[in-house]
Amino acid sequence: MIDSSSPAEPLFGTLAIAGVGLIGGSIAAAARRNNVAGQIIGIGRTASRLEAAVDAGLIDTGTTDPAVAAEADLAIVCTPVDRIVKDVRILASVLGPGSLITDAGSTKDSVCKALTDLDGANGPAFIGSHPLAGSELQGFEHARADLFHGRLCVITPTENALPDHTARLEQFWHALGANVVSRTPELHDQALARTSHLPHLVAAAMAGSLQDSDAQFTASGFRDTTRIAAGDPGLWVPIFSHNTTAILAALDRLQAKLKEFSDSLQHHDTCALQKLLEEAKRNRDGLG
Amino acid sequence: MIDSSSPAEPLFGTLAIAGVGLIGGSIAAAARRNNVAGQIIGIGRTASRLEAAVDAGLIDTGTTDPAVAAEADLAIVCTPVDRIVKDVRILASVLGPGSLITDAGSTKDSVCKALTDLDGANGPAFIGSHPLAGSELQGFEHARADLFHGRLCVITPTENALPDHTARLEQFWHALGANVVSRTPELHDQALARTSHLPHLVAAAMAGSLQDSDAQFTASGFRDTTRIAAGDPGLWVPIFSHNTTAILAALDRLQAKLKEFSDSLQHHDTCALQKLLEEAKRNRDGLG
Repeated sequence: MIDSSSPAEPLFGTLAIAGVGLIGGSIAAAARRNNVAGQIIGIGRTASRLEAAVDAGLIDTGTTDPAVAAEADLAIVCTPVDRIVKDVRILASVLGPGSLITDAGSTKDSVCKALTDLDGANGPAFIGSHPLAGSELQGFEHARADLFHGRLCVITPTENALPDHTARLEQFWHALGANVVSRTPELHDQALARTSHLPHLVAAAMAGSLQDSDAQFTASGFRDTTRIAAGDPGLWVPIFSHNTTAILAALDRLQAKLKEFSDSLQHHDTCALQKLLEEAKRNRDGLG
Repeated sequence: MIDSSSPAEPLFGTLAIAGVGLIGGSIAAAARRNNVAGQIIGIGRTASRLEAAVDAGLIDTGTTDPAVAAEADLAIVCTPVDRIVKDVRILASVLGPGSLITDAGSTKDSVCKALTDLDGANGPAFIGSHPLAGSELQGFEHARADLFHGRLCVITPTENALPDHTARLEQFWHALGANVVSRTPELHDQALARTSHLPHLVAAAMAGSLQDSDAQFTASGFRDTTRIAAGDPGLWVPIFSHNTTAILAALDRLQAKLKEFSDSLQHHDTCALQKLLEEAKRNRDGLG
């Protein structure tokens, strides 16, 4: 257990965050509040945005030059999933041996497979992370120090990961308030396909098939079920592309359940329909 | 326009509400706040619940005997859709000529078809209503006088409806704060199949296919898209049963859109995927 009230040395001397948006900014805010790092360096592509993040008190230094983060003990890449591998490589080329790099992406398998050589044996180590927290909002202006509080963070060490690195990564997320579980990248992607990526796809399909003339007839049910369809397509296309196989498998699974519903409707089998709705309610109520 | 601040005569002398739950109770609360009726009679099946609704100040009189409502100028049936026709018939047998009966059910076609003889020529008239407001909560304890404020209420007069009756029904919902549109029962059911009944079915299918081991990986996306699956199966089975044809047509339409998504995934067509997600975002953002 981390005692975040301790005035002791921070867990990490220097924390580097590549991509200071909602997630990166919230990591910075949470790290600062919980004394997780001696200093926080933000790395980005737009100098004016980084200056604004410094002014907002989220990061100590903002830079467009990854080499400035050479002394970091921990670097976390919070860019869209199609940029993670490239951004990790850039950081790996400047960080020293013993340092640890992680990410905050929604897909893990292809990223971790592409970075297996970063096992810490001869330089920085990479271990994947996925904090299950976010919002339709974008930008560090919406960053919150409590964004990860009580949320799950899945870390995905591969068999090459050193136990010490895995333990430090776990400590990091704990210190930010998250509950941490460890899964293989494959199992992570399969579970998230079912619990996040498919719901996004279905919400988008539902919103996408809305006729203009139906808009006035939408109430809270339609709005709740399609809220996530307002998410940024630029973030979601790469997620879908990285996890295609698992998402298609999850869709098949949903189709089987939809067929149970349509069969019960076609056969006017109210008993079967009642059972299906009761199972759904039980599962949903179980989430609290 | 109704001036709800007017100290004038209420629109209706006696308002009878059959089924004093969330919707019936909110109608009572809104009617009282807006001086819509001289007195409000609640009709139900459980005397103790009706007494409690009187004690809560929602209704003036509570009774299990519909005959007590004989003097009502307007009666509104707020029972589940599989009980509406029967409950309207009971009220029609006790109310006088010139009186108007409506309902608050989520499906309109089968109800209105079953009651076409109640055209007001020789007794009470029936015209269907569907206020698009509600919640997973049940019971008059959750009633709110502002539940209909700014919400849409669809009224579904058939060709037999007298213009004066339609106008009075419209005035009633306006006085409760709702925006009123008029549609045929068929068009109402087709639109609501797409905007309410299908989203409910899909949310239930998604919640119903959740594996126990996946529950920990659910975050706000899954929770938002499945929230309505916690609704009462006892209310939704009749809705699905009453609107089967339109719901199956809406499901076919959604399936076509889901196929566009799965095709784009299978063919790794990120351009098509981007367009699909942009269309969805545009539609969802348009709902505000």
